[in-house]
Amino acid sequence: MSKFKRSQRIAMMVMEFLFYANKSFSLNYFCEKFDVAKSSVSEDLQKLNKSFQEQGLGMIVSNIGASGGAYFKPSISKSESQLFLENLKNKLQSKERILPGGYLYYSDLIFNPKITNYLGLIFASRYVDEKIDYVLTMETKGIPIAMATANYLNSEVVVARRESKVTEGAVVTINYVTGSTRRIQSMSLNKRSMQPGKRVLIIDDFMKAGGSAKGLYELTKEFNCIIAGIGVVIDTEIPQQKMVDNYFSLLKLKKVNEITGEVEIEIGGK
Amino acid sequence: MSKFKRSQRIAMMVMEFLFYANKSFSLNYFCEKFDVAKSSVSEDLQKLNKSFQEQGLGMIVSNIGASGGAYFKPSISKSESQLFLENLKNKLQSKERILPGGYLYYSDLIFNPKITNYLGLIFASRYVDEKIDYVLTMETKGIPIAMATANYLNSEVVVARRESKVTEGAVVTINYVTGSTRRIQSMSLNKRSMQPGKRVLIIDDFMKAGGSAKGLYELTKEFNCIIAGIGVVIDTEIPQQKMVDNYFSLLKLKKVNEITGEVEIEIGGK
Repeated sequence: MSKFKRSQRIAMMVMEFLFYANKSFSLNYFCEKFDVAKSSVSEDLQKLNKSFQEQGLGMIVSNIGASGGAYFKPSISKSESQLFLENLKNKLQSKERILPGGYLYYSDLIFNPKITNYLGLIFASRYVDEKIDYVLTMETKGIPIAMATANYLNSEVVVARRESKVTEGAVVTINYVTGSTRRIQSMSLNKRSMQPGKRVLIIDDFMKAGGSAKGLYELTKEFNCIIAGIGVVIDTEIPQQKMVDNYFSLLKLKKVNEITGEVEIEIGGK
Repeated sequence: MSKFKRSQRIAMMVMEFLFYANKSFSLNYFCEKFDVAKSSVSEDLQKLNKSFQEQGLGMIVSNIGASGGAYFKPSISKSESQLFLENLKNKLQSKERILPGGYLYYSDLIFNPKITNYLGLIFASRYVDEKIDYVLTMETKGIPIAMATANYLNSEVVVARRESKVTEGAVVTINYVTGSTRRIQSMSLNKRSMQPGKRVLIIDDFMKAGGSAKGLYELTKEFNCIIAGIGVVIDTEIPQQKMVDNYFSLLKLKKVNEITGEVEIEIGGK
């Protein structure tokens, strides 16, 4: 008889599913791990699915059969996502965050794992069916969000750098025009970082005119990869015309007034 | 009666504990969430603790009493940690990773969430009793490891940057000497990123002579914070004398031979 009771099996299964989100485990794997019959594992999985849905994190997708398996498919509930974004919006709408030039300081939020986990869960929920191989971002502030997203998608992160480093080896470099200041900048990516034909999700923290998203887009094409989506946390209302078309944003920055200290942000950017 | 059976409660509790590692939840929180008595929650917590230990992730520390609470304390088992590092070592010891100048390419590993989760768990296990407020790192490759560590420690990440950005506001900048090439470089940190008196864990991916760790150390002192530890993934055997004394490393790079393609790495750096 198994030394694990149902509640213990279930606890350990949650740990595995969360640690390896979007990765399929065979039923046999759990049968052997817990020394129980397939029927017990199937029943466990049904219970687990209910719990994941109740918690608003997603679901356990099971494929019962000879070569059966199950995986945790992340999917944040609409209400939970709204609640989180409302909270984030309120934090961002503080006049203390206004920097000279009308920028907003938000490094404290973007490097807080509790916040990035949620952001990652939201992006992963949207792109989980797109079979993403790489989450591509640009240094520096895109990295934590890209990592959290890739964690839930079971994919890898690839980081384009502003300058190529001696510790990086052969790189592909492209030039791009920053959308807002019209300066020419370059970004580099190690030649071995993406295999051709793979599916890429571009993630960034902020989009004004979309120059760096456009750069990442061009870089993806240089590697003969497929762009499966572009997601940003905050985009700006102005300029309305961005350098990339199809993107998804969580928050829209409508106004920053350095004199009155007013910051206006709207949920559901694009 | 509660609509949640024990196995469902336990599954949902695992999710909360993992999502908010090292954060204390009151017993009342769970009593209200599941509409059950404290005695049931206490029993759930005991079962959960067993499951966490069985899985080798750590433990649930409970404080049963009027103001009782419980939290997930991450702690990877020695055998699991060894197994992971053995595997990482083997991946790193590939001649394909050798770059001109005797550097090793490992961005694919450091930006893979499955690997960084483990690295974070190992560092968190070591520093969880140190009451870390901030995990401080330097852009770029330290970020994913710092995020994973902070996630398990329930702390925030602070990132020093090579150049100060217009989007960052007032910064504190220090100059430091890179240990290996003896060049003077600078690193900057936003003035509001750390409060005085807080406890800081410095995390980085690589240490040769320890110049940037030393820089992060000096920066921490500029903010009147306390250095609670320095952790790096890989340090090098040469130079033996580093610019910082008390650090902890997971792997030691002993040799990289560009001609023969030999890479020698040892588990348990320092």
